[in-house]
Amino acid sequence: MNIAFIIYIIGWILSIEAVSLLLPALVGFIYNEQTGIYYLVTGIICLVVGIILTRKKPKNQKLFAREGFALVALCWIVMSLVGALPLFFSGEIPSFTNALFEIVSGFTTTGASILDDVEAMSHTGLFWRSFSHWIGGMGVFVFLLCIMPMTGGSNIHLMKAESPGPSVGKLVPKLRDTAKILYIIYFVLTVVLFIALLIARMPLFDAIVTSIGTAGTGGFGIKGDSIGGYNDAVQWIVAVGMMMFGINFNFYFFLIGKNKKEAFKIEEVRWYVLAVLAATVVIAFNISGMCGSLYEAFKYAFFQVNTLITSTGFATTNFDLWPSFSKIVLVSLMFMGACAGSTGGGIKVSRYVIMFKAIKQEIDSFIHPRSVKSIEMDGKVVDKAMVRSVFMFLAAYAIIFTVSAILLSLDSDKSIVTSFTAVVACLSNMGPGLDQVGPAANFNGMSIFSKYVLIFDMLAGRLELFPMIVLFSPSLWRRNK
Amino acid sequence: MNIAFIIYIIGWILSIEAVSLLLPALVGFIYNEQTGIYYLVTGIICLVVGIILTRKKPKNQKLFAREGFALVALCWIVMSLVGALPLFFSGEIPSFTNALFEIVSGFTTTGASILDDVEAMSHTGLFWRSFSHWIGGMGVFVFLLCIMPMTGGSNIHLMKAESPGPSVGKLVPKLRDTAKILYIIYFVLTVVLFIALLIARMPLFDAIVTSIGTAGTGGFGIKGDSIGGYNDAVQWIVAVGMMMFGINFNFYFFLIGKNKKEAFKIEEVRWYVLAVLAATVVIAFNISGMCGSLYEAFKYAFFQVNTLITSTGFATTNFDLWPSFSKIVLVSLMFMGACAGSTGGGIKVSRYVIMFKAIKQEIDSFIHPRSVKSIEMDGKVVDKAMVRSVFMFLAAYAIIFTVSAILLSLDSDKSIVTSFTAVVACLSNMGPGLDQVGPAANFNGMSIFSKYVLIFDMLAGRLELFPMIVLFSPSLWRRNK
Repeated sequence: MNIAFIIYIIGWILSIEAVSLLLPALVGFIYNEQTGIYYLVTGIICLVVGIILTRKKPKNQKLFAREGFALVALCWIVMSLVGALPLFFSGEIPSFTNALFEIVSGFTTTGASILDDVEAMSHTGLFWRSFSHWIGGMGVFVFLLCIMPMTGGSNIHLMKAESPGPSVGKLVPKLRDTAKILYIIYFVLTVVLFIALLIARMPLFDAIVTSIGTAGTGGFGIKGDSIGGYNDAVQWIVAVGMMMFGINFNFYFFLIGKNKKEAFKIEEVRWYVLAVLAATVVIAFNISGMCGSLYEAFKYAFFQVNTLITSTGFATTNFDLWPSFSKIVLVSLMFMGACAGSTGGGIKVSRYVIMFKAIKQEIDSFIHPRSVKSIEMDGKVVDKAMVRSVFMFLAAYAIIFTVSAILLSLDSDKSIVTSFTAVVACLSNMGPGLDQVGPAANFNGMSIFSKYVLIFDMLAGRLELFPMIVLFSPSLWRRNK
Repeated sequence: MNIAFIIYIIGWILSIEAVSLLLPALVGFIYNEQTGIYYLVTGIICLVVGIILTRKKPKNQKLFAREGFALVALCWIVMSLVGALPLFFSGEIPSFTNALFEIVSGFTTTGASILDDVEAMSHTGLFWRSFSHWIGGMGVFVFLLCIMPMTGGSNIHLMKAESPGPSVGKLVPKLRDTAKILYIIYFVLTVVLFIALLIARMPLFDAIVTSIGTAGTGGFGIKGDSIGGYNDAVQWIVAVGMMMFGINFNFYFFLIGKNKKEAFKIEEVRWYVLAVLAATVVIAFNISGMCGSLYEAFKYAFFQVNTLITSTGFATTNFDLWPSFSKIVLVSLMFMGACAGSTGGGIKVSRYVIMFKAIKQEIDSFIHPRSVKSIEMDGKVVDKAMVRSVFMFLAAYAIIFTVSAILLSLDSDKSIVTSFTAVVACLSNMGPGLDQVGPAANFNGMSIFSKYVLIFDMLAGRLELFPMIVLFSPSLWRRNK
């Protein structure tokens, strides 16, 4: 293993986190809050360690794919441990497990909280929670690739391990330029959303944290009732914002390029938009009896559909009280997730599209054995290795899901619905589940053991399983001939 | 399409069903019940139609695989429609939908009932319900292959379509002899179970229906409390019986042959037995606090584990009242199912074994790209087409499961747990689910629409999805060049 290079990369990640920690420290300074000091001190220590580790640039920058995957998982764990420190030391979250849960939930853009009273938090803490969504949404390695020139071709492994979706395409020939374009799109869209929220008369601080939390499709709110207390305009803007950040960023890249038509040809985006609209309509009619008017029903339905399909986790109403039909549609959306190459979580629309096409092809080739067709997506042939990896992903997802649900059910006072939806919510980086972890409740009631299971699930979900599986796979640590 | 041959086969299936219907008629005669007449009349009409359809033996007996699959699905539907008639006309089940649900549940060995008061049924009706398990358990086509010589090599398609499991092996070179051996093993094991139950002092009629219901891993009981009211010896015998019929029949074939050691080398059987024992132990300790003694806990746990893993559906206690942990373990067993080549339902242990090996291989080959190993089972290489078909099956299962659960949730007064577990229970041919369709309840409260969805699910589950998918696939009916 290339230990020298791995340490060097960890050093870089710590440096990036150190700089990120200065932002909440600044917020603390502006709002005159003492908590800011903990962020400042953590940031400085983190920076010193980072600088020491990156002092010597290793000449050999080659990583095997397996090392790249394990390294990304390792860095996310280190990043989370460090990120939890100021929350813990400032006393705002007195249990380290809870602080770790909260920040992992932040970085993985899950948005599941252990806070009983979010409104009691300082501005500093609230900003750090939401900013962790923004960092985790696009990914820290994508950022690293923007700023650090790398030789040896290892960068593609790092980007693959962190980016959501079955395939990571380069938008432009150079990976570094691709990373830069992604971050520029990400930043510009966040600013647009922020301005829209300001225009809708959202208070400045609220608009900042809501826009970065939406951009990362994270879902940490700063109010007890999440987004429910804001005016209708804000609710619609946040809903549209979530939908926007759940779209494959290739869409925006094509939209600003020469070939605008290409953008609308992306199959995944078309299915995604169709799913959002269809689910909104059926749910709106299903809940219309419970709402004052059809407009209200559509407002609630559109918001909840987007928060669940993009796995953001904001809420404007307690959908746990909705009829079973609406709840099952929402849980299905949770399993589906947003587009690949977006900041949204879940299994991803493109995996479903590939799965459906593979099944259809299997049936067709059984019925008409002579007409062998290959699977195509966006006009390109999907190769067999990709199809296989999609099915492996689904199977691994099912296994991790089942094992986690069984482990959570050891918490004897939790209902089956709680155990199941807590795992879906964390594994898909959603946030709230149903019942005892529903939109009106939080995760503080889970046992410490359950919390660590869910921390693993959140990281596994954000990194799309394989980096975490590889890191914890015994055969990684066996000597290879 | 070879219409002449398809009609000819349907004729044979009707003739077999006609003869089967004479048995409940005989039961009616013995117990002096008027209901027997309806079975006699239906049987005679069925026989006449069957004889007319099989009058002319078609020379061309060739079927494409697709036709074989669709034919099997079609025959099961025809068989169910006919089998429902005497239940309906005798007035014992006054709604045709309910009668159809009950007999589909019988043939598919599901054991989900719509009867509010099973003890009010006549002996005739009770026998027919349970006998349908025995017919459906091993399969009507397997029986047909025993008695009808067939040319053209189509028989393998029919057997493949009806037999559970990812691969259908011939035990002996001739398929017809394989079918005969299977039915002999099936018959002998049923008789052994019947005698054991008599020795345990079960009344004669109860022992007959319980042994055939257990052999088919069906689960229709004849008492309101299923097996719960019988003595401990009966409960243990039924539990062991269920376990026996959930084992791959190859095991018994090897056991009576020269190579007895081969029997114990079957990987699937070893995993299956391990799963039964492990689940029994963890559940017994989990529920020990609720039971009088550890013996009681083991008795209940062993019975419920076997009833769920083999998808039989007998009950000795209401496990819906058990802790979440036990319930989730049981639901996982429901999803797993018994061995391929047994009468048990579910996804089948061998599919899981192949899936786990495929995932392990994928991870290993990612970590050590140079060491490419193939997947082996029972010492033989599992080819890629088989691995692919396992994943396709799992994905198709997940899709049918999700769509069915959504359709069921349209029944607005049903809980999420009800909708989900009703679908698992029917798709895995289990029987009872949880909550409103739990072991202490029945399916009569479902809407007519839901019942037809579940009828589809039961047939799809018994025939392992593809025959039903092919039958309802638009491309089957499109003209092929």
